[in-house]
Amino acid sequence: MFGATGDVRIETDSLGEVAVPIDAHWGAQSQRSLYNFAIGTETMPAPLVKALGIQKQSSAKANMELGVLSEEIGNAIVAAAGEVIDGTLADQFPLSVWQTGSGTQSNMNANEVIASRANQILTGVHGGKEPVHPNDHCNMGQSSNDTFPTAMHIAAGCETIEQLIPALGHLHGALDAKAKEYADIVKIGRTHLQDATPLTLGQEFSGYAKQVEYSIARIENALPRVLELAQGGTAVGTGINSKAGFAEKFAAQVANITGHAFVTAPNKFEALAAHDALVELAGALNSTAVSLMKVANDIRLLGSGPRSGLGEIALPANEPGSSIMPGKVNPTQCEALTMVCAQVMGNATTVSVAGSHGHLELNVFKPVMIYNVLQSVRLLSDASRSFADNCVVGIEANTARIDQLMNESLMLVTALNPHIGYDNAAKIAKKAHGDGTTLKEAALELGLLTEEQFAQWVVPADMIKPRA
Amino acid sequence: MFGATGDVRIETDSLGEVAVPIDAHWGAQSQRSLYNFAIGTETMPAPLVKALGIQKQSSAKANMELGVLSEEIGNAIVAAAGEVIDGTLADQFPLSVWQTGSGTQSNMNANEVIASRANQILTGVHGGKEPVHPNDHCNMGQSSNDTFPTAMHIAAGCETIEQLIPALGHLHGALDAKAKEYADIVKIGRTHLQDATPLTLGQEFSGYAKQVEYSIARIENALPRVLELAQGGTAVGTGINSKAGFAEKFAAQVANITGHAFVTAPNKFEALAAHDALVELAGALNSTAVSLMKVANDIRLLGSGPRSGLGEIALPANEPGSSIMPGKVNPTQCEALTMVCAQVMGNATTVSVAGSHGHLELNVFKPVMIYNVLQSVRLLSDASRSFADNCVVGIEANTARIDQLMNESLMLVTALNPHIGYDNAAKIAKKAHGDGTTLKEAALELGLLTEEQFAQWVVPADMIKPRA
Amino acid sequence: MFGATGDVRIETDSLGEVAVPIDAHWGAQSQRSLYNFAIGTETMPAPLVKALGIQKQSSAKANMELGVLSEEIGNAIVAAAGEVIDGTLADQFPLSVWQTGSGTQSNMNANEVIASRANQILTGVHGGKEPVHPNDHCNMGQSSNDTFPTAMHIAAGCETIEQLIPALGHLHGALDAKAKEYADIVKIGRTHLQDATPLTLGQEFSGYAKQVEYSIARIENALPRVLELAQGGTAVGTGINSKAGFAEKFAAQVANITGHAFVTAPNKFEALAAHDALVELAGALNSTAVSLMKVANDIRLLGSGPRSGLGEIALPANEPGSSIMPGKVNPTQCEALTMVCAQVMGNATTVSVAGSHGHLELNVFKPVMIYNVLQSVRLLSDASRSFADNCVVGIEANTARIDQLMNESLMLVTALNPHIGYDNAAKIAKKAHGDGTTLKEAALELGLLTEEQFAQWVVPADMIKPRA
Amino acid sequence: MFGATGDVRIETDSLGEVAVPIDAHWGAQSQRSLYNFAIGTETMPAPLVKALGIQKQSSAKANMELGVLSEEIGNAIVAAAGEVIDGTLADQFPLSVWQTGSGTQSNMNANEVIASRANQILTGVHGGKEPVHPNDHCNMGQSSNDTFPTAMHIAAGCETIEQLIPALGHLHGALDAKAKEYADIVKIGRTHLQDATPLTLGQEFSGYAKQVEYSIARIENALPRVLELAQGGTAVGTGINSKAGFAEKFAAQVANITGHAFVTAPNKFEALAAHDALVELAGALNSTAVSLMKVANDIRLLGSGPRSGLGEIALPANEPGSSIMPGKVNPTQCEALTMVCAQVMGNATTVSVAGSHGHLELNVFKPVMIYNVLQSVRLLSDASRSFADNCVVGIEANTARIDQLMNESLMLVTALNPHIGYDNAAKIAKKAHGDGTTLKEAALELGLLTEEQFAQWVVPADMIKPRA
Repeated sequence: MFGATGDVRIETDSLGEVAVPIDAHWGAQSQRSLYNFAIGTETMPAPLVKALGIQKQSSAKANMELGVLSEEIGNAIVAAAGEVIDGTLADQFPLSVWQTGSGTQSNMNANEVIASRANQILTGVHGGKEPVHPNDHCNMGQSSNDTFPTAMHIAAGCETIEQLIPALGHLHGALDAKAKEYADIVKIGRTHLQDATPLTLGQEFSGYAKQVEYSIARIENALPRVLELAQGGTAVGTGINSKAGFAEKFAAQVANITGHAFVTAPNKFEALAAHDALVELAGALNSTAVSLMKVANDIRLLGSGPRSGLGEIALPANEPGSSIMPGKVNPTQCEALTMVCAQVMGNATTVSVAGSHGHLELNVFKPVMIYNVLQSVRLLSDASRSFADNCVVGIEANTARIDQLMNESLMLVTALNPHIGYDNAAKIAKKAHGDGTTLKEAALELGLLTEEQFAQWVVPADMIKPRA
Repeated sequence: MFGATGDVRIETDSLGEVAVPIDAHWGAQSQRSLYNFAIGTETMPAPLVKALGIQKQSSAKANMELGVLSEEIGNAIVAAAGEVIDGTLADQFPLSVWQTGSGTQSNMNANEVIASRANQILTGVHGGKEPVHPNDHCNMGQSSNDTFPTAMHIAAGCETIEQLIPALGHLHGALDAKAKEYADIVKIGRTHLQDATPLTLGQEFSGYAKQVEYSIARIENALPRVLELAQGGTAVGTGINSKAGFAEKFAAQVANITGHAFVTAPNKFEALAAHDALVELAGALNSTAVSLMKVANDIRLLGSGPRSGLGEIALPANEPGSSIMPGKVNPTQCEALTMVCAQVMGNATTVSVAGSHGHLELNVFKPVMIYNVLQSVRLLSDASRSFADNCVVGIEANTARIDQLMNESLMLVTALNPHIGYDNAAKIAKKAHGDGTTLKEAALELGLLTEEQFAQWVVPADMIKPRA
Repeated sequence: MFGATGDVRIETDSLGEVAVPIDAHWGAQSQRSLYNFAIGTETMPAPLVKALGIQKQSSAKANMELGVLSEEIGNAIVAAAGEVIDGTLADQFPLSVWQTGSGTQSNMNANEVIASRANQILTGVHGGKEPVHPNDHCNMGQSSNDTFPTAMHIAAGCETIEQLIPALGHLHGALDAKAKEYADIVKIGRTHLQDATPLTLGQEFSGYAKQVEYSIARIENALPRVLELAQGGTAVGTGINSKAGFAEKFAAQVANITGHAFVTAPNKFEALAAHDALVELAGALNSTAVSLMKVANDIRLLGSGPRSGLGEIALPANEPGSSIMPGKVNPTQCEALTMVCAQVMGNATTVSVAGSHGHLELNVFKPVMIYNVLQSVRLLSDASRSFADNCVVGIEANTARIDQLMNESLMLVTALNPHIGYDNAAKIAKKAHGDGTTLKEAALELGLLTEEQFAQWVVPADMIKPRA
Repeated sequence: MFGATGDVRIETDSLGEVAVPIDAHWGAQSQRSLYNFAIGTETMPAPLVKALGIQKQSSAKANMELGVLSEEIGNAIVAAAGEVIDGTLADQFPLSVWQTGSGTQSNMNANEVIASRANQILTGVHGGKEPVHPNDHCNMGQSSNDTFPTAMHIAAGCETIEQLIPALGHLHGALDAKAKEYADIVKIGRTHLQDATPLTLGQEFSGYAKQVEYSIARIENALPRVLELAQGGTAVGTGINSKAGFAEKFAAQVANITGHAFVTAPNKFEALAAHDALVELAGALNSTAVSLMKVANDIRLLGSGPRSGLGEIALPANEPGSSIMPGKVNPTQCEALTMVCAQVMGNATTVSVAGSHGHLELNVFKPVMIYNVLQSVRLLSDASRSFADNCVVGIEANTARIDQLMNESLMLVTALNPHIGYDNAAKIAKKAHGDGTTLKEAALELGLLTEEQFAQWVVPADMIKPRA
């Protein structure tokens, strides 16, 4: 007999009998999938499984509303789906990401598990198809082709709204607080990685905060199309075998359960055949990763040292550095975050390639697309919080070093242009550069101005804004 | 002497004298760049050069408004910049994309050319720095570091608004017209590239139209941040050496000249140090490319044949097919468009990599970023129009073939389920599949229904929407 | 106290005391990492953990050979590392991929676990630093900076050689067998997805087989640099604090343990600061993914139908298709494989971005790079085997359909050119196309040749090779 | 009449008459392409046009050898093709990259131009099809489907061998010379961008040189498959309508003309339907770009300053820096090179996407693939030379700064471990870090050793290799 070994029970599908582990809620089609798709170690992500629970619960409620599903069976499905939502049945979803491209087996996994558990609720015996049938009841008026993309959007939408946007908001807050804290610390600017005119450390951090603020806006811009649900399109988008009104009632249930503004997609053909909304979201995540790569990279540059780098800020020491080099603090949170950013950038390529390869009425790269989107959302969420809490809030400005570097800088000569002319200012700068001295020393040696004049004219704090 | 050979005049910069071609408007720094960056064949794109004209004209106007630039010199700059805008001076911008990462040489190219031409307007003699000086007047209150990103945003914003969005609107219109034209042509659906339940050809095209409609929305969503201008940040974002109010007056001039809603960026540090707005735009272009890849690919699949493919639609024959195979029409417009899509997808990677590598106060991948964004915008614009005009509008539905494929299909058996039960319907389908006959033949042979019943129950046109 | 809760023991590092779960072999630094890097769900891949076991065992053996490590302690380390290699201690490696970019915590995880287990072997008590010390003994003459990249190369090299190349060889064999089996089945060719001149189904499959053959060659080409080991470079590539000869003796041990041709890297600075060898390998995996995408996509195209597609081949039915459409077989193995290909293509982007962002003496994107490379290797290995076994071997040629499509094709007219001239041949083709008839019908109706002549001249089997 | 306006002559193709510019050599099909594919500004790259010349010349020679083409016509074709090869006819190839995906129009462009010029050579009158016919003679025994990929491989192979490998060799030489020149300059190392143990500046550059050396090896590894030519496969890979032996004689001619080891592809089906060899080459170029990104980025980091950065090396000043900051030298060659690297990385994505989307007997992304490969080859070639000549050779070590940073570093304390123990060494390092003093000052203050002992034990030059 095909299927599991050991203590088993027999389930059936249209190809015949299959042995499944005796305690499993899943049935024949899930078991076949375990055998046919022994690829990799990646199973369907938890938020996607939860979304399937929301989808099945919403379907049952909508079908009861439409009068096509009995209350007894419907309520048992609602209860069983609730255990998928709350994670109680998490271990009943063992299927690989690398399965049928429509996610059919995972839809059937949900149907089988919920039917089994509903049967157990109603009869005390799990498994089987009586009184609750995986297809006829759990999948009523549905197809894998609209169910799975619906679950994709529910999962991506909820995780983005509940995890990512708050996490980025948290990071934004931490960076913005530093921008305010450092508003008066004037420091050397650097363009082309070369010394330039000054700015405040607060201005520098305000740029980082703005990048994160815009990242949130970008992600929010992608949401309206993520919140559109394919359900009701059934096999090819026409809604064949569903009852009129199902799509709308379903979406209302999802909105109610999640508390988010999910709606039914206005065009179901687009919603099954393309997953542009996830390509778009992956693009917003990619932009966010590019932004965070810059922020984290700058912070490790500013914190490089302690002696032989820029050393303008000190990052918190969260773990032992090298056993032989006291004082060495590695920017480990920057490193974790930038690795996450690289992953998110590559995931955007994966999602784009997958999105580009759809055929006619169905894109069959659904599992790989949602796997990558959810991984990116999770990683950016966790890494943003970790970076904020374990790095940003603990940053300390090394004002002595900042002052030293700024005061040694040759670019302050810029301030002399209006007083002694560009040519004389240039002479001072060239002499200081050549001799390795400060500007003041060079200026005084050349006799172009007095110490008092230098002190009056060369004021970095006046160089950080337009002139009045 | 460093520089050009042949008939030359001598120009100078801070490194000394440089020979430039006698008729050229450009000066010493442009000439050095030609020598130092002999890399590739790609020169600064025309829309970027035009944007530099708009930027220099707007700067002169803002500086005149602020009373820091004389009317005589300012008006000459405005006139000369106007010739950059209208393309008259296009051949004066020979510099490579592969130069300093801040675009400094191209900013100087604009300063030198506009000063030269302004001098010619005022004195009859081109070149030199009197009375109009490239730095002191053309670059007044500006830095390459804010000028070049400003030109990037002007170019990307204008091209997107003026070229791409209308072109996509045009393509949307063509697809939408087909969706309406084909509203009553019922055809076989295909999921997993396998036969499925029917839909109308119009429904199929409505999905394509929706994809393009959403593409436009995605691109429009990216615009608010593209319309923010870095000008006024000068060297590091602080605005050093610019006059208070310059940034706002400048942006108003750009808005006035272009007719688009350009505004000054609220945070200039972000605007110089990161180009996330272009990463975001490149992401929207990537989503669009993924969408168009699907649309064009589907259309060539539907048009495959004429005998041994799907053959449901005929594409217009715009050029000779093979010299030995009459009747062969290659889907050449689909091919040009999908090649463009591949390019746009790769360009998004380039822009993301470039955006991720910024350092501190300045991202120095500016030219490569705008080169890729403008190439993508141009290609998507042109290819969308070409595809609409040379392919979509000329598509003809092959209704005989469509009917034949649909009527031969086994999936219509689905309609019998409510009448004779799933098991009997399955018997019919299996028999037809095994014998290679039609469903009707199999049904009648099995004696499960009458010819009249078959005609009454198996009506594809009833299978394209939810049941009442 | 920092650390775990519940039943704990106390371990220490240079930052102080840390509570660890009482039964865990890991120590203070691993425990800190669990807390500081609560990012994502991805833990270090099993082949990398195994490679750390190989690395620690080889180091101990080399140090014993060099006389700097006692036999008692060395042998205990060798034994404990053996349990890492054989997987016994797999649950002792809980750390996240998203940690320090040098993989320091995972190196320390290995040091702590092996020391603990070695202490248990020697004293009966696990944990602690006596008599075997995690740093002084397990990490003797090593640094995370050379250890972790060494483990990366061991893992990538072993998995590629032991898993991927055989799996691709297996797939090649399956495709090659089909090429031979189908050597005499002449069928219509398709270029631009349009009907073209004929070829054999075997020739078509020979192209697929060749693509896989070349994929293997590409991957093998990348191996020489993957087989170079960084060990011996210690902190920055100089080998400080290691003993002369360690690098070579170490590499010999690894070669001996694994049976593969690992050698010490000729330049340790490159081996720590860059991971170009993994970028190269990811590139070869990307090429392979592109090839397999084509192969799998073609096979699902050829298998599309059963009635309304190309239908030239039938794919095995491994699981139920739609519950309402008997005879529908979805190309699920093609879908799983093409999803894998999309993932591998995106992973190549991740690895490239990560590789491009190194700084000076150390690339700190090590964990994300090896995580992606190992995921790609695993997925390509598993999916290639699954595709070969669950799809390719079960493919059946639908010769009736193949004959029908070929004989209906208009391109066979090509064969008449030498006999009746291109113009007359074109007349036949155009008439057949216009009337929807066969070439023979059109030819006879036009009276341009006899039925016998048609049978003699239009022989597809003669059209599949150059003329003599 | 369709076609050009102004002074025209009439040419024809199978769709009818077309007006072409009177002086143009191209004919009807080229002219149609200009009209049908008004997309972008990118025309077929010069090396590809040259390769078409080589391809047509080799075909004519092979056909003469086989006795199927007359000497008179054959020699005229050889002469005309020679003018394509030497660039004389460069302006006769105006077609867009964004055309038919098989490159058909560019093949016809070559056929038409060469026929016209050959006719002019033979009769004094250009244009037309007599005595030399574009299809019958110039395209004899060929198809666009094998011709264009052959030209792709010729162009990619020649440019890689003649331009890129020498340019990378030149860059390798420059880096290697610096590695030798700086062999004795001991400096601080940096890992995680934090201070670490010392190495020599020469060791650092040796890593860069090794990266380039390996890049060359990677590119060379890709060549064997690039040097395989599709010619002889004609329409679908079978070689229909070509004469047996043509493929081999053709390849021999190409090898003879170019001097490179071109051979006929062993499997023509793979050679038409897939362009994995270019995906592979693009992957090798991508690896090279990743390597050069690291090298150029490190060099600008080491050259950052002059006062507030690392400042260990000085880069040559090739152009004016800021007009207000004397002494500021921007790393402009690093910036040009890293922009090129970003482009090459994105181009690899484009080529991969394009390669993944082939269908059955023909990949129809040929022009976009070769456009990207040739752009990457050209840019890497030019930028490598520019970077070597305008940056690397002019680098100067700032030994005073190098010494200062190294001597101030705390990590030299490592050397004291064997003499006074780790704990005492740590006390010294911690005190120096806390007090902001040197190690020696801290050590003497703590009374742990004498000035003589410090001088004897703390010798950076002893820390750059394993201990004996």
